[in-house]
Amino acid sequence: MPGPHRIVIVGGGFGGLYAAKALRGQDADITLIDRHNYHLFQPLLYQVATGSLSPGEIAAPLRAILRKQRNVRVWLGEAVSIDPTARNLILADGSVPYDSLILACGARNHYFGNDAWQAPAPGLKSLEDAMEVRRKVLYAFEAAERETDPALRHAWLTFVIVGAGPTGVELAGAFAEIAHDTLRSDFRSINPEEAQIFLVEYADRVLTTFPENLSAAAGKSLERLGVRIRTKVKVTEIDQEGVTLSVAGASERVDSRTVIWAAGVAPSAFGEILAKCTGAQLDRQGRVIVESDLTLAGHPEIFVIGDLAHSTDPGSATPLPGVAPVAMQQGAYVAHAIVSRLRGQTVTPFRYHNKGNLAVIGRASGVADFGWGGFHGLVAWLLWLFVHLMFLAGFQNRLLVFLRWGFQYLTFSRGARIITGEANRHA
Amino acid sequence: MPGPHRIVIVGGGFGGLYAAKALRGQDADITLIDRHNYHLFQPLLYQVATGSLSPGEIAAPLRAILRKQRNVRVWLGEAVSIDPTARNLILADGSVPYDSLILACGARNHYFGNDAWQAPAPGLKSLEDAMEVRRKVLYAFEAAERETDPALRHAWLTFVIVGAGPTGVELAGAFAEIAHDTLRSDFRSINPEEAQIFLVEYADRVLTTFPENLSAAAGKSLERLGVRIRTKVKVTEIDQEGVTLSVAGASERVDSRTVIWAAGVAPSAFGEILAKCTGAQLDRQGRVIVESDLTLAGHPEIFVIGDLAHSTDPGSATPLPGVAPVAMQQGAYVAHAIVSRLRGQTVTPFRYHNKGNLAVIGRASGVADFGWGGFHGLVAWLLWLFVHLMFLAGFQNRLLVFLRWGFQYLTFSRGARIITGEANRHA
Repeated sequence: MPGPHRIVIVGGGFGGLYAAKALRGQDADITLIDRHNYHLFQPLLYQVATGSLSPGEIAAPLRAILRKQRNVRVWLGEAVSIDPTARNLILADGSVPYDSLILACGARNHYFGNDAWQAPAPGLKSLEDAMEVRRKVLYAFEAAERETDPALRHAWLTFVIVGAGPTGVELAGAFAEIAHDTLRSDFRSINPEEAQIFLVEYADRVLTTFPENLSAAAGKSLERLGVRIRTKVKVTEIDQEGVTLSVAGASERVDSRTVIWAAGVAPSAFGEILAKCTGAQLDRQGRVIVESDLTLAGHPEIFVIGDLAHSTDPGSATPLPGVAPVAMQQGAYVAHAIVSRLRGQTVTPFRYHNKGNLAVIGRASGVADFGWGGFHGLVAWLLWLFVHLMFLAGFQNRLLVFLRWGFQYLTFSRGARIITGEANRHA
Repeated sequence: MPGPHRIVIVGGGFGGLYAAKALRGQDADITLIDRHNYHLFQPLLYQVATGSLSPGEIAAPLRAILRKQRNVRVWLGEAVSIDPTARNLILADGSVPYDSLILACGARNHYFGNDAWQAPAPGLKSLEDAMEVRRKVLYAFEAAERETDPALRHAWLTFVIVGAGPTGVELAGAFAEIAHDTLRSDFRSINPEEAQIFLVEYADRVLTTFPENLSAAAGKSLERLGVRIRTKVKVTEIDQEGVTLSVAGASERVDSRTVIWAAGVAPSAFGEILAKCTGAQLDRQGRVIVESDLTLAGHPEIFVIGDLAHSTDPGSATPLPGVAPVAMQQGAYVAHAIVSRLRGQTVTPFRYHNKGNLAVIGRASGVADFGWGGFHGLVAWLLWLFVHLMFLAGFQNRLLVFLRWGFQYLTFSRGARIITGEANRHA
């Protein structure tokens, strides 16, 4: 007699975690593997980067989330390959056999072939990234306070954010608040309000995934906060001393000691490994093209979900966006699909239910788009707060984040403004 | 006409910060210099190391603490030397002139000449140390969960703490609670209760700075928590695979993947620099021997306080202990001494007012010693909680820590159990 169906899930992000949770109570032997011991609530990463929240407040140990679900085992490990014939997932230090495999490996920062930009312009995909961005931003003000050369001081107080998607917009709004409110009385030699925040975008508007009227409203809100928006601009060079832009064919230099990359992500490198081992097709970005039931062609036992997957709704040719709700719904879907199949039931194709898109711009200002319409301002901001608190893992984190936000709203302070890391990594 | 008296303070720990605060409202030009941008509440460092608190909850930006005190300028910088003739403090990247200099550089981990032990047995003096200890402890359980060799699994589940002073006792109690309560249901292959916690001490009892009856009570409480206390034991070797002990002349090996150093600290290396530049005398531990007014002999403008100073009460030959209350009182004293001198008033020698010593052993258990007597148990624990909350900087941190402790008491969970740092620093 065979044992319970062995399900191996790679990745404890939204896709993998929601798949594991949806398998609760099933007669299955589930192993969830992640390189980290925690589930990271990525939509709030920018708040760690800007000193509003502590890393521990947006991350919860996977073990703690799943402690009561006895059919799940959590393993700290790194998937490096698979053996599709033997149905074995190969780890850096071992292997795990599977009957069904769910790959939810997520995405990483992507510099469009300019990997040298990573050091001067960190992205924002991991907690370590967020701590690095926080260190850079807070250190820039410290260095400016001690700098006597006006040109260098100006460069320390110039912040450039590349990419005006939701992350770029949220960072720009938060940087403006840090400069104009949080640090207002903290310095003696500089006035933090001298800080310049540039938001640089290749397209012709911010928040291109939102309707034009909401993009325009978001742009106006950012400008009121003092953010300088530069659209239709291409970044041609980034180094430790600034960025070079190409504006309508002309080159322009911005001296800045703090450049943040929010311009793009690429799927996990596991896509390429999968292509090699199974012949899976990748799209131009490197995402794995999956069937309508999110399996690999020819491998009905291998599912790919979340940011790693190129999936489309039935009848559509546009791939679904790499956002948390898609990953969550796909996680729940594949859990259901595996169980249905074991019962001999047929599985209908995956279809994404878009409940809307939200982005926050700053204090009491956000945009909300529901497809059939949308709005901006205070109500969108409150909706954003509510939705993010609801999906944050762990009651304790929810309460702490709620309190932090309350404090910040009332006092304009940011509770998590310490610079950690090696002492001599400055400058 | 000369400008205001220039006071330079090196170090934003208890000594330096309390000196700066005590100068509030004075007509002085104060520069507070620290390598970090925050004041660290060191007595709670072990709670960060054991996943109870987040780093940001026990650290507050010096700038934020002092933002309203307009006569203080906070500088991020590292003091490397002084020029006592020109009255200049030399930084790694610049210099600052002073009229009065307050050196409050603190202490660092000290391995008694065995610096190679630092990598396998991290100490607990900085936030980075605390994160490293947390990473090691939590990773040990993760590795044990995946380990199939019983001997290796046993080594992963063996924890050795070297040194049974307050920090060692607090760590041992917290480790026991992690193994027996916090992680109880989190694993599938191991039972965290199998974990062994050794507390190793060279003296004949734990908490040697407390009276014998309280030491005995603390020892019993630890044993009830499952901690194995090994007194009169010398550590002769520490490596990645365990520790070698010398017990009554015989050698004994304990296989352990997690060894924590809580056996000793040494004063900051700035003491040696001072000895070179000014001829200051150091004691055997490297502390700077100061006059009764905490100045250097021959240099009435240079004060040394806190863990860096060897100071005695009038009529006593015993140096004051390296604890927070001594540093705080010395900080306030030198501020007062500088102001008095400027007014032409005489300064009485520094005298330490010992209000008592506290240590916590575990859940609802502590010891309190007041010199004239003491007690142990629940009341000592509550007193410890109260005193530590009161002295923690920042109202927001106080509330968050209070909530974290409340949660932990009620649910046995620890809210800050994420493993951060470079992914491949495991093992």
